[in-house]
This record gives sequence, C-alpha cells and structure tokens, in this order.
Amino acid sequence: MGPGPSDVHPRVLAASARPTIGHLDPEFITLMDEIKGLLREAFKTNNAYTLPLSAPGSAAMEAAFANLVEPGDKVIVCINGVFGARMAENVRRMGGVLITVEDRWGEPVDPEKLRAALVSHPDAKVVALVHAETSTGVCSDVKTLCAMAKNSGCLTIVDSVTGLAGVELRVDDWQIDVAYSGTQKCLSCPPGISLITYSQAAAKCVEGRNTPVQSWFLDLSLLMAYWDGDGARAYHHTAPVNAMYGLHEALLMVHEEGIENAWGRHRDMHQRLLAGLDEIGLTMVVDEKYRLPQLNVVSVPDGIDEAKIRRDVLNRYNLEIGAGLGVFAGKVWRIGLMGYAARQENVTLCTNALRQALL
Amino acid sequence: MGPGPSDVHPRVLAASARPTIGHLDPEFITLMDEIKGLLREAFKTNNAYTLPLSAPGSAAMEAAFANLVEPGDKVIVCINGVFGARMAENVRRMGGVLITVEDRWGEPVDPEKLRAALVSHPDAKVVALVHAETSTGVCSDVKTLCAMAKNSGCLTIVDSVTGLAGVELRVDDWQIDVAYSGTQKCLSCPPGISLITYSQAAAKCVEGRNTPVQSWFLDLSLLMAYWDGDGARAYHHTAPVNAMYGLHEALLMVHEEGIENAWGRHRDMHQRLLAGLDEIGLTMVVDEKYRLPQLNVVSVPDGIDEAKIRRDVLNRYNLEIGAGLGVFAGKVWRIGLMGYAARQENVTLCTNALRQALL
Repeated sequence: MGPGPSDVHPRVLAASARPTIGHLDPEFITLMDEIKGLLREAFKTNNAYTLPLSAPGSAAMEAAFANLVEPGDKVIVCINGVFGARMAENVRRMGGVLITVEDRWGEPVDPEKLRAALVSHPDAKVVALVHAETSTGVCSDVKTLCAMAKNSGCLTIVDSVTGLAGVELRVDDWQIDVAYSGTQKCLSCPPGISLITYSQAAAKCVEGRNTPVQSWFLDLSLLMAYWDGDGARAYHHTAPVNAMYGLHEALLMVHEEGIENAWGRHRDMHQRLLAGLDEIGLTMVVDEKYRLPQLNVVSVPDGIDEAKIRRDVLNRYNLEIGAGLGVFAGKVWRIGLMGYAARQENVTLCTNALRQALL
Repeated sequence: MGPGPSDVHPRVLAASARPTIGHLDPEFITLMDEIKGLLREAFKTNNAYTLPLSAPGSAAMEAAFANLVEPGDKVIVCINGVFGARMAENVRRMGGVLITVEDRWGEPVDPEKLRAALVSHPDAKVVALVHAETSTGVCSDVKTLCAMAKNSGCLTIVDSVTGLAGVELRVDDWQIDVAYSGTQKCLSCPPGISLITYSQAAAKCVEGRNTPVQSWFLDLSLLMAYWDGDGARAYHHTAPVNAMYGLHEALLMVHEEGIENAWGRHRDMHQRLLAGLDEIGLTMVVDEKYRLPQLNVVSVPDGIDEAKIRRDVLNRYNLEIGAGLGVFAGKVWRIGLMGYAARQENVTLCTNALRQALL
C-alpha cells in the first residue's frame, strides 16, 4: 500500500510466468493486437498510436518529450510536485526552451497561471502537466487545462502514471495529445512497462520533425513499425514477452470490471480509508476537492518518528506504506489504494496497523 | 531455438512470479546487491559500476553511447552486421562524428582495418564493436581490437548481448570500458532487461562531461545513486521488481554452473548440432574460426522456401528457429543454442525436425 508498485493480482503473476515465446511468433503478434485494443479502452481513446513501451514510466515521460520536442521548441511545464519537475528536466535535456508554471506541493495546477503563461508565450508549442501527482496525492483538472492549451494552439502532454484506471481519465474527450502511464499503479502489474498514446496531431508533429528523435529506443516511428506493421513486423527491439503476458491479463481484468467501475471502486475504498484514518486522528494533506482516491497523503502527527512507524508496520504486518518525497520528506506518509490493493481487507489492515504502531 | 529470446528455465519463471515487493524495500536492496556481485562474476570484471538497466539490450546500447559520447566527439564504429549499423545510428543521434570500419556480413571485424582507422583518426575518443553479432553468428576478436583501441587512447564499447555466458568474455582482461548484454540470450531470462558495466575510465569520462547526458532515464550518474547509494537509495525510477527476481535466479544458476563451464557447454552442444546438421547436408555460413557456438547461421539450400520450413517446424514440433536479417534475409536460418536451450534434447529435436521438414 505504498505509492507503487502496488500488489500484483495472482492472475497477473501467473500469466507472467508462462513459457516465453518468440517476440515475432504469430501468437505473440495476436497478443500485441489485443493489448493495443484493451489499452485504448482503458485510456478512453481511439488513437491508433496506443502501445506499451518496454521500459518504466520514466522512459514513457522521456518518450513523450523526445518525440514532440525539438531543440529550440518552447514548452510550458506545470510543476506541482516531483514529476512536474522531472518533466522540466526532460525539456532541458531535449534542448527545449522551458517555461514553468509553478504551484505549491499539495495544490493542483492553477488554470489561471497556465492562462497567463499562454498569453505571455503565444509561441509555445507544448503544454505538459501531471494528472495525478504521485508525490503529493493531488489530482489536477486535466480537462480544463488541456482545453486552454489547445485553444492556444499547443499540443498537450499528460502524465497519468498514477491516474490510469484509478481515477477518471478521458484522453480523447479531454484533448490530450500524449498521455502515458505505468503498469505498477492501478493496473496492478509488476513495474517495468509503460503505456503511451499519441493523438493524430502528435503523430503528425513527429512525422514533420526537422531533426531525428534523439533516442533511437524511444523513437515513435520505429516503434510503430513493430507495433503496427501489417503482416511481417519490422524488428526494433526484443519485446519483454513475459511482461506483456502480465499486462494483457491486467488489462483484461480492467475490461471485465469495466473502467468506470474501477474508478468507482477506488473512490469507495478511499472513503472507507478516510473514515478509518479519521477514527485514529490522522488528517489528510490535500484538500478534499483535489484528492486522488488511489494515493492518500497523510500528515505525520507532531513528535512521531515517521520512518520508525513505516518499519514497524512493514515488519509486524508485512505492510508497506510510502514516505514523503522532496519537501514532503519526513512530514507525510503516502498510502496507496491502487488496483488490486484497493479492497476492504487492505483498508482494515492499514488503519489497524497504524493504530497499533501509533499507540 | 531462435536468435533469442531463448527458452527460460522453470526456476527463472517461478522466481519471476513471486509476489511483488516495493523497489525501496530493504529486502529488495539486498537482492540488488547480490545481482551486482553475480553480474561482475558473469562479466569477469571488478567494475563498481556494474548494474542491470530496466529496459532491453537496445536501450543498453543507447546508454553506452549516451553516457560516453558528447556532440562533436569522434567515434569509430566497426560494422559487420545489424548491430554495428545500429551503433552507428546511435552515434549520429548523439551528435557524434561517425567513422565506420566495415566488414562483410559473415566476417569478423578486421583488426587491420581498425588499425588504419585509428591511424587516420588520432583524435577518435571511442571505438565500438560487436562481440557476438546476432545477425550473422560471427564472433570478433575483442581482445585484439580493444588492445589496439586502448593503445590509441580510445575508450572501448563492446556489445555482447548474445555473447555473455555463451562464449568467452573477459571485460577487465580485454580492456573493455563499457560492455552490455541482455537477459534473453545465454542467461535464459525473459527479455526486457539489460546488463551493463562501466570501467573507472568510462565513469571518469561521464563525470567529466561538458553537457548533460541527453537521456534522463539512461544517465549513469542518476542510476548509480539508486543502485549504489549507501543506506537510503535515491529514487530514480521504479525498478522492474519481478524481472529482477528472474535475473537474480538466472545469475545464480550461472554461478552454480560456473561461467567457464557454461562456455564449455555451449561449445559442446554446438559441436553436436554441427554433426547433426552435417548429416542432413546443411552447411554453415560462417567460417569455423569465427563461429559463435550459441548462434548457428545455416545456409538455406537452393530451391527451399525457408519461411515454409520455419512455419512447419513451429507448427509441427513447437520449435522456433530464426530467419535471416538484412542481407541474409531469405538466405539463412539462425539456430540458437542459448543458455537453457543449449542441451542435448534440443539438438536432437532440431536436427530431426529439420530433416523431416526438408523431406
């Protein structure tokens, strides 16, 4: 119950342990096609360019920027936690011109600040923001922010590593040009794979580049020749076959539950956790309006050694909860209710383990 | 029995399916330390900077060049197959000045050509070459080539994706500054992870860079803060926990067998396969002196539809063998004897399946 990796469902673990077949085997190609379809369903998109990447979420972030940003391109990055700051670092390394819109940790991205940045920088090409900030437990209003960016002629990049399948996300309706996520949060897959989708506008931007994408491994055009070829797929890299078995199973489980039902289950378990934490006098850092149900950031009471509590619940109850990052280090715990972990027995275990540890 | 992924040992599959724990869990940190030690043993190196990367071999290639090469650096790349050509593409994307030394497919890198290139380009910073060319089944003389490069003051990058644990490789003795490999060849792990080691000279080169490494995800200095921190590791990305369980188990199996014994087993099975192929009139593409035991490239006899034969053995015997790549497309089969696949029953199955299919 940390900020991820989350508990992996036994069905997913079992799928991952099936014998490895070739990454160009006809049966594997069928699996790839099914994964693409299921991913579109989870992202709520019709984007043709929707695929898993053979590397974790950090690489998906890099893929988003590496494909859309050329040296000299102006990029507005909204920062309200660790992952916004990491986006900014990516823009710098791509040789982009970085404009930042900053909000305090624990607050969502402020649409008025983005509006001002768009007015000051009418030549901006891309607006990037984090949907579900894993470092703070805050959900930003992606729909409103992306509408503003699109009205100003920008492409939009949205990090939903912690968001996908845990909270409402609608790639097409919300005008997101590139969204990416990870397997190890609300999909309850082992970490190591990421998921990305590019709109037609984003794909057109990649096709029209003046310079090659600086990363060969993350170059969308090369990846799509493997993921979207007709008949014989072009060899790019060797896909992580067993991880794809696991991803396929996890996406199938989301499909069986229904994506809206998955969102609802996360909300429901979040409410139950809040009630339990309230009973033992623990309070939340983030205002009710912006809270992520799947990532609960709790204030450490005064005088408590937070690391000792985490060690206690790990050693006594086999329960992991997360520490704070950055400015939140030492001040908060991060309690995940992600995917398979979002169920009643975990809520009960967590609140009672904390109750005992805090005695 | 294709060119990889190879068959995965049941012990490795079972390890991969263990419940996922946190990537900062103390137990996982212990596992990371054991992996680093076992990797040094397999690579025959004492390099402190020896670690797995959370992405496939292609990303390890990119990591090698991204960390050592800055824009304007002159890099000599030896090309004798697909993966040498891919190295050249990496140098271009890094903004390096590319010098190529080319040999025909099926031939090893010619030391005399490298010598001439080093004389013509005394300002070269890096020499890169492929140890075990997966596209051609050729083994180049890494020891001689690296000695030449080092005598000219260059750093050396060696691709041993298919080499590691299947054929002699001595990173320290052979003066390799960066060597990388994959999990899915002679280690018999699922694909998706790669392995890399940097010498002190390579690490010093990274520390002395004038420009940031263009990839945040593959930046050695950031990776080492996670892989080599004392006590609390710096968070970089979420490690692929289950894939690391599998890698740990596979490296443990190499340790149990002994790396020299693993090389010997591959040689032995290769000789048995050759005898079987000879009986049915099939001949090898590569001269005996340069053959990789773990990747056998066989000429398709005149008048044979090679794709039909591959389909036949896949459908009738559940046996995968590989097609030719690039200039070898349609002309060769690639038969892998890698790791767990390098055993007598596979040699027997393969030769008899081909005998039947060719009738």
